Amino acid sequence: MSGLDGPVTGIAVLPVPGMAELRPGDDLAAEILRCAPELADGDVLVVTSKAVSKVEGRLIATSADPAEREQARQQAISDETVRVIARRGPLRIVETRHGLVMAAAGVDASNVADGEIALLPVDPDGSARRLRAEIAERTGRQVAVVVSDSMGRPWRHGIADVAIGVAGLAAVQDRRGERDRYGNLLEMTEVAVADELAAAADLVKGKLAGIPVAVVRGLDTGGYADDGRGAAAPPCRPRWS
Amino acid sequence: MSGLDGPVTGIAVLPVPGMAELRPGDDLAAEILRCAPELADGDVLVVTSKAVSKVEGRLIATSADPAEREQARQQAISDETVRVIARRGPLRIVETRHGLVMAAAGVDASNVADGEIALLPVDPDGSARRLRAEIAERTGRQVAVVVSDSMGRPWRHGIADVAIGVAGLAAVQDRRGERDRYGNLLEMTEVAVADELAAAADLVKGKLAGIPVAVVRGLDTGGYADDGRGAAAPPCRPRWS
Repeated sequence: MSGLDGPVTGIAVLPVPGMAELRPGDDLAAEILRCAPELADGDVLVVTSKAVSKVEGRLIATSADPAEREQARQQAISDETVRVIARRGPLRIVETRHGLVMAAAGVDASNVADGEIALLPVDPDGSARRLRAEIAERTGRQVAVVVSDSMGRPWRHGIADVAIGVAGLAAVQDRRGERDRYGNLLEMTEVAVADELAAAADLVKGKLAGIPVAVVRGLDTGGYADDGRGAAAPPCRPRWS
Repeated sequence: MSGLDGPVTGIAVLPVPGMAELRPGDDLAAEILRCAPELADGDVLVVTSKAVSKVEGRLIATSADPAEREQARQQAISDETVRVIARRGPLRIVETRHGLVMAAAGVDASNVADGEIALLPVDPDGSARRLRAEIAERTGRQVAVVVSDSMGRPWRHGIADVAIGVAGLAAVQDRRGERDRYGNLLEMTEVAVADELAAAADLVKGKLAGIPVAVVRGLDTGGYADDGRGAAAPPCRPRWS
């Protein structure tokens, strides 16, 4: 029997529509639970970093004047940067204070109000842990949380969502030392599960639809009792030199 | 009402277990249809490149002797390479004849029999188109096909699946020029939908379980009547210099 019928062996990726516009100080957990009251044990909640940035007040007020806004954006990128990796015209690929390597340090003027610019959360793993704890406290349910952001990839076209914060599951699943069904030793198989979850969630969220949260249901997340090590451990350092 | 109840607004990602070991010349479409007879219009079939390589005979017979096998693997990598991008010890990051930049040119000795090494399909977009056509011919159903492979990502830990061949959907969805709900112009939003589909499918396939195919159901793939431009167009050239 295939996974297409019979007992559900696959996963569901479900958007959480209907969330209100978020502002600094808002209760993100409450708003998610209002729109997704059916959250269940083992669900993975994937939250766009922009939503986290908004409630955490990681917004910079700028002039509505395009030139001034761009100047403020460039200054914010500089402030968030610890190292410039590459430049192409006005575009900077940088390492952020989180150890993330990405365009414009994650500083972004989309899906925010005119006259505002969003920065990434200060500590995305901490944001994920707090949200997970708040949901457990209010509902008794143990979910995992992934804070996602869109990134370009060197050598690939297009952007895809990856995990910048994780709580309650292993960001990278280490299968090294295990054997495939032919007996071959797996050497390179550290799977970036949290990144794949973020990518899956992006298929139903969408930047234009304004849906910042999705739920992945049915994945065996390993039954973490604790938060796990987060997305920052092991640090996202270069694998290629 | 949230996406977690009521009408299904999300997607399902379903493994296709039970497939037989594939050998050169085998009928991949027939084997998939045997194990996933419920394939429906609009489904996205995500097939691990290894399965395609096997039926297309992209296997090299090697000695079972580890040293000789490694020598054959290194030779195969050289043969598949048009340009070496980076080296770290014995590891080569290269550009393949497809224009893909990846470790070891996709040459892989996992999930193949002892004494064999797998190369990537010669033309993964062509493989995807053929499989799509065969399924349409035999069932009358219009599915999209993604041929996936695992890749490391510079500056990120772990591997994630991406699309190396695509038929029946847009590999990259170009949203540039559209506006978010705040009226901000989207500048960077070319979304690598096929890569996100490959990543989602990997969550239920798994290298150790030996499940090479998954179905993504419920995604609006844009109702392609034709194959589309594939994963190789636009070519996967460096975005960062």
